[in-house]
Amino acid sequence: MPRYKLTLEYDGRPFCGWQVQANGFSVQGALESAVEALCGEAVRVHGAGRTDAGVHALGQVAHLDLPKSYRADRVRDALNAYLRPHPVAVLAAEEVTEDFEARFSATKRHYLYRIINRRADLTVDLGRAWRVARRLDSDAMHAAAQLLVGRHDFTTFRDTECQAKSPERTLDALDVARYGEEIAITTSARSFLHSQVRSMVGSLVWVGEGRWRAADLKAALDARDRAACGPVAPPEGLYLVRVDY
Amino acid sequence: MPRYKLTLEYDGRPFCGWQVQANGFSVQGALESAVEALCGEAVRVHGAGRTDAGVHALGQVAHLDLPKSYRADRVRDALNAYLRPHPVAVLAAEEVTEDFEARFSATKRHYLYRIINRRADLTVDLGRAWRVARRLDSDAMHAAAQLLVGRHDFTTFRDTECQAKSPERTLDALDVARYGEEIAITTSARSFLHSQVRSMVGSLVWVGEGRWRAADLKAALDARDRAACGPVAPPEGLYLVRVDY
Repeated sequence: MPRYKLTLEYDGRPFCGWQVQANGFSVQGALESAVEALCGEAVRVHGAGRTDAGVHALGQVAHLDLPKSYRADRVRDALNAYLRPHPVAVLAAEEVTEDFEARFSATKRHYLYRIINRRADLTVDLGRAWRVARRLDSDAMHAAAQLLVGRHDFTTFRDTECQAKSPERTLDALDVARYGEEIAITTSARSFLHSQVRSMVGSLVWVGEGRWRAADLKAALDARDRAACGPVAPPEGLYLVRVDY
Repeated sequence: MPRYKLTLEYDGRPFCGWQVQANGFSVQGALESAVEALCGEAVRVHGAGRTDAGVHALGQVAHLDLPKSYRADRVRDALNAYLRPHPVAVLAAEEVTEDFEARFSATKRHYLYRIINRRADLTVDLGRAWRVARRLDSDAMHAAAQLLVGRHDFTTFRDTECQAKSPERTLDALDVARYGEEIAITTSARSFLHSQVRSMVGSLVWVGEGRWRAADLKAALDARDRAACGPVAPPEGLYLVRVDY
């Protein structure tokens, strides 16, 4: 059974998230329907990360085993044809060895969170960024963010339903940069806990508003208590940008 | 009657274009409804440019005369509140003198056209860019584009329904630059003819595909004949970026 690696882009808005659910239309489900249309069999598609409802991907990775061999570009083009009109695109497909696992072989995951810092509602970027009306101090956010970099117990910044065994993770980078009215928060780690990026972003916005100082963010981390977290940023600003192997 | 200048952003997708039409929902109509909700009277909103159906704006400008004086930031916030949920936002409002005319006082208009040059359909950028599957030579496009800069008779590149008296325009800039899979075409002029930007972009794509050489673009310009134009690029890639006064 030849194994294929897919690089995927999707608009998270119409989906209940990556994962197949009983009540809801998922990215994984859309892909599995397209795969079945291609090969005539029900095949599981395994993703590198389970993005939540409304979260976008510019470079999600998945793998699947097909019952027979196809040229990789045929897999890409056929899946794209069967995926229409759903906003999921296979950017690349390649045949990989059987030891490649989209989730477990990943060495680093990269996320982007987009904030538009202005009073007016979003129009062109509606559903694609978080609009924050209060003026944010992005330098203060960046400085505070550095306190989260490194190996920590991130209990404060993970969803209570997170199923990971350990709340410890090593955050490799968490950078905040302003470009005009847009604030880009980029982060990378081998893996993240459930809702970790959105929980960190929401707390950083409290720092940007002046509601928290950097020391308050550190105290929240040290509390190892979900109740110490700031607000959880909405999903529409979050993008899974790339997965390294 | 105090006059106000509005700077506007909108997603062109749900609209029949800028201009009020008998059958269709226009940006101008959405604004005029919001203005009437604010001041209780029917007031005409005059735009700097009549964008077509599906064309976006990041910095359209309009002016209007209100029956009484309001603080400019109140005009901005109230119109934004009444515009919901339509994807039109007033980025700025300011009181201006009576000789300010959004259309006639403009000294330069700036447009951006976004092409995503790849095989896969768009997802996150659906409705916000033109996907062109064939590989485009952006350097060849930029070189050819320079033949259109300057004062010319642009009959070839204007819609047959264009109502401008003269087909002559002075194009100040027309630049083509590639950023990864995205090609950005930026152009500026005191004014443009109807469909001029989309007509130029479609013809430049023929140059990028190798179907036309630069000399063919020049011959099309010199023909002063609408039939000599290449395809007209679709509206969803076009953005009115800024208007100078």
